Amino acid sequence: LGKTIKNNVDLIGWHEVSHVHFYRQLLVEFFGTLCLVVMGCNCITPYSSIQTDAGLDMSSIIMAWCFAVASLVWTIGHVSGCFLNPAISVAMFANRRIPFVRCVAYILVQVAGAICGSCFHTYLRGQAIGSTCQTLLHRSIGVDETKGFIVEFSISFFLLFFVFATIDHHREDHGGSHAFMVGGVIAVLVNFAAEMTGAGMNPARSFGPALIHGNWDAHWVYWLAPITGGCLGGLFYDVVFSERVVSWTRFL
Amino acid sequence: LGKTIKNNVDLIGWHEVSHVHFYRQLLVEFFGTLCLVVMGCNCITPYSSIQTDAGLDMSSIIMAWCFAVASLVWTIGHVSGCFLNPAISVAMFANRRIPFVRCVAYILVQVAGAICGSCFHTYLRGQAIGSTCQTLLHRSIGVDETKGFIVEFSISFFLLFFVFATIDHHREDHGGSHAFMVGGVIAVLVNFAAEMTGAGMNPARSFGPALIHGNWDAHWVYWLAPITGGCLGGLFYDVVFSERVVSWTRFL
Amino acid sequence: LGKTIKNNVDLIGWHEVSHVHFYRQLLVEFFGTLCLVVMGCNCITPYSSIQTDAGLDMSSIIMAWCFAVASLVWTIGHVSGCFLNPAISVAMFANRRIPFVRCVAYILVQVAGAICGSCFHTYLRGQAIGSTCQTLLHRSIGVDETKGFIVEFSISFFLLFFVFATIDHHREDHGGSHAFMVGGVIAVLVNFAAEMTGAGMNPARSFGPALIHGNWDAHWVYWLAPITGGCLGGLFYDVVFSERVVSWTRFL
Amino acid sequence: LGKTIKNNVDLIGWHEVSHVHFYRQLLVEFFGTLCLVVMGCNCITPYSSIQTDAGLDMSSIIMAWCFAVASLVWTIGHVSGCFLNPAISVAMFANRRIPFVRCVAYILVQVAGAICGSCFHTYLRGQAIGSTCQTLLHRSIGVDETKGFIVEFSISFFLLFFVFATIDHHREDHGGSHAFMVGGVIAVLVNFAAEMTGAGMNPARSFGPALIHGNWDAHWVYWLAPITGGCLGGLFYDVVFSERVVSWTRFL
Repeated sequence: LGKTIKNNVDLIGWHEVSHVHFYRQLLVEFFGTLCLVVMGCNCITPYSSIQTDAGLDMSSIIMAWCFAVASLVWTIGHVSGCFLNPAISVAMFANRRIPFVRCVAYILVQVAGAICGSCFHTYLRGQAIGSTCQTLLHRSIGVDETKGFIVEFSISFFLLFFVFATIDHHREDHGGSHAFMVGGVIAVLVNFAAEMTGAGMNPARSFGPALIHGNWDAHWVYWLAPITGGCLGGLFYDVVFSERVVSWTRFL
Repeated sequence: LGKTIKNNVDLIGWHEVSHVHFYRQLLVEFFGTLCLVVMGCNCITPYSSIQTDAGLDMSSIIMAWCFAVASLVWTIGHVSGCFLNPAISVAMFANRRIPFVRCVAYILVQVAGAICGSCFHTYLRGQAIGSTCQTLLHRSIGVDETKGFIVEFSISFFLLFFVFATIDHHREDHGGSHAFMVGGVIAVLVNFAAEMTGAGMNPARSFGPALIHGNWDAHWVYWLAPITGGCLGGLFYDVVFSERVVSWTRFL
Repeated sequence: LGKTIKNNVDLIGWHEVSHVHFYRQLLVEFFGTLCLVVMGCNCITPYSSIQTDAGLDMSSIIMAWCFAVASLVWTIGHVSGCFLNPAISVAMFANRRIPFVRCVAYILVQVAGAICGSCFHTYLRGQAIGSTCQTLLHRSIGVDETKGFIVEFSISFFLLFFVFATIDHHREDHGGSHAFMVGGVIAVLVNFAAEMTGAGMNPARSFGPALIHGNWDAHWVYWLAPITGGCLGGLFYDVVFSERVVSWTRFL
Repeated sequence: LGKTIKNNVDLIGWHEVSHVHFYRQLLVEFFGTLCLVVMGCNCITPYSSIQTDAGLDMSSIIMAWCFAVASLVWTIGHVSGCFLNPAISVAMFANRRIPFVRCVAYILVQVAGAICGSCFHTYLRGQAIGSTCQTLLHRSIGVDETKGFIVEFSISFFLLFFVFATIDHHREDHGGSHAFMVGGVIAVLVNFAAEMTGAGMNPARSFGPALIHGNWDAHWVYWLAPITGGCLGGLFYDVVFSERVVSWTRFL
């Protein structure tokens, strides 16, 4: 994850589009988002064929998301950074980690990947089961748009706060597998938000199933909250806690 | 975790308050404790909206605590040590790892963070569900104040025993992610104590919900036991098992 | 895992059969596949003696597969590469990682190990319970041979895509335990496919129980799909995303 | 784990008893076995106070054992090797890793630790619940003494096979936390054997609860099988797969 993400890149980055590598990055973001949506959506649909009770098993859901993200970061992180998420793409652009052109292209292929992933999942499991994988506000327990926005904002803030700590080149206290730790933070955030908003924190992952299954209730929340929360979370880490800032100001 | 924690620091450390870094440490302890309480409390409240049976799923609870602690240590450990717990703060002071002024300031912001976290959690889930996240003695299965004290003392003893092994600068057999291993020990201790005392081992995490929801039954246990257990656990490791002591005395 | 797997080996490799090491590799592939089938099969049979409801617990299943694979890679990975799977053997041969003779010999001992493992499991748990560990299409929820092929193809594609990323000698962003990460990808793929096809992705693991319990329904799927998917998954990584290719073509 | 365990030590090692370090090793084996038995036993007793159904949750059980062992290896592995298990002690002696005197002393303190741990657990949870933590043959599903012996032999064989791979000084492909991986293998073996024999693989852990609660049914199995299986498992790795042997004989 760390090696690909540089500080203070070009603002526009128009020259990148003439490189083969740019299109490999788009391919991998498309493929990765597709895999993430298929695996993530399927793990939250009931195991009707092998379990007598059709309840959800939160443990297996969070392990599935954890290892899905971890294995994708492990596999393709060296090519594109493995964002798989428009909120991360925007936060990376806003904090000068990727140029504008790449940010826009990433978002487009991420959304395309999520749509294809949702189609594939619906083909496999059928329309009825497939539709349960949408991220929706659980209004029955009192989660309205305000609370939903706050929850999605918070988890995206924390996610990007964490991601920016992970890509901090100057940290030397990070042992072990970075990929697994990114999976771990996904696990706890999914656990936190699942019963309130379905734990979107990824506009592409919310948009794909919404397009296929047609439920647009409060869909704006799943775009605006992750993007604003993500940008501020990354900024918060960068400005206050990045090792570079800490080193410079430790004895101020 | 390791780099920030030094041995034999100043006893009082009054000069630290004139540094910017001191206030960054307080900010991050406040923010971290807030996040920990929100995520930890929410994972132990029933998933009424997405599960038909409202029972608790111990596996998802211990994974949530594990990854919540792990991701916070990973993210902010380099700034403040990521204690998030007055019992750790006192044990660190008692074993000469942080000065007195920092210890007191940490405790204050940790308690403030826990109170804000509990408010936030109650706002999101409502008063009735929010109140289930308190740490209380489970008197129905015979856990009185004596047993409760013993349990809380034991888990805090083990927690600090483990933490002092982790910050032992002279150990060279610790591979992988220290953050994840700290999460792992939280997981097993939560599993151990959950059905007896609610697995406090953190006075701030117990105080926040108690203040918001007003149940002070045996609250002294959740302060006295973690602090005494923690100080002794850290001391036990330092005096008998720290690599420095082991190296000096191996051939005695 | 990485050290044993070299690039561009001999095509036939007939000379290997005169080395003692070749037979150690066969022994360990036999033993490993036997252990994997016994542990993997037993974790998916109901805990009738210790649980009142005999339902399956997906979380414990995926953790069992994760740690079974991880501990085998950790233990014997340095001898044979720890494939334990004819689909991996063929994909490794097809992508010039092992010679032909070794590939054929691996497949034979893997199948033999799986048969012995299935016998052992059936001896321990009885014919009735033992037979539940077969990988079969869950036709009751609409998984026919086409969908079954697609699912098995997809998970084997992803598995080998992941494995080839793991054995990429030029990647330097892979911290932590490779063995555990391989276990993790098994976990998410088992979670994904369990309720559709039983998550074969390993012809030997499917063949053993089928031979012992005699249900050959759509058995060809569990051979053809993993092998084709695996070969293409490995090829996809090698040609497009391997660090060597990425480095050469980054500025093209 | 690795550093403390040397090859080809003295056979008797009588001189060790005059060193302070010897008694520190005994103290830590006592303390570690006590903690392991308390935490391990408690995680397999029903959560009657916080769950409506009193069934066992295999996922939380295996995570508890995993992290209990992992955190103990992490904390005290550098002092004594963190065996906590007479079967490991005997296997280490049989394969010339520890001298005879240390082996006997370890076994005594491990058994003493397990008895104290079982007492503590029974004090906390009461006689009725405490007695459920015994390791017994589940005769109701047909596990007689022969099958029980085979199961205990197999898991102990695999455990020591794994442990000897972990302490192989010449392996260089082991990244990440060794402590966590040892916990992981415990997890899968507990999952495998829990519903047949209660997953002893540790005579001390079986003896403590048996002494306190008085059920000695087939107790010899829990001593003889782990010790014979463990010695052979360690020997199998050492003779056939250790990196030293592999290196010497690779081109034979």
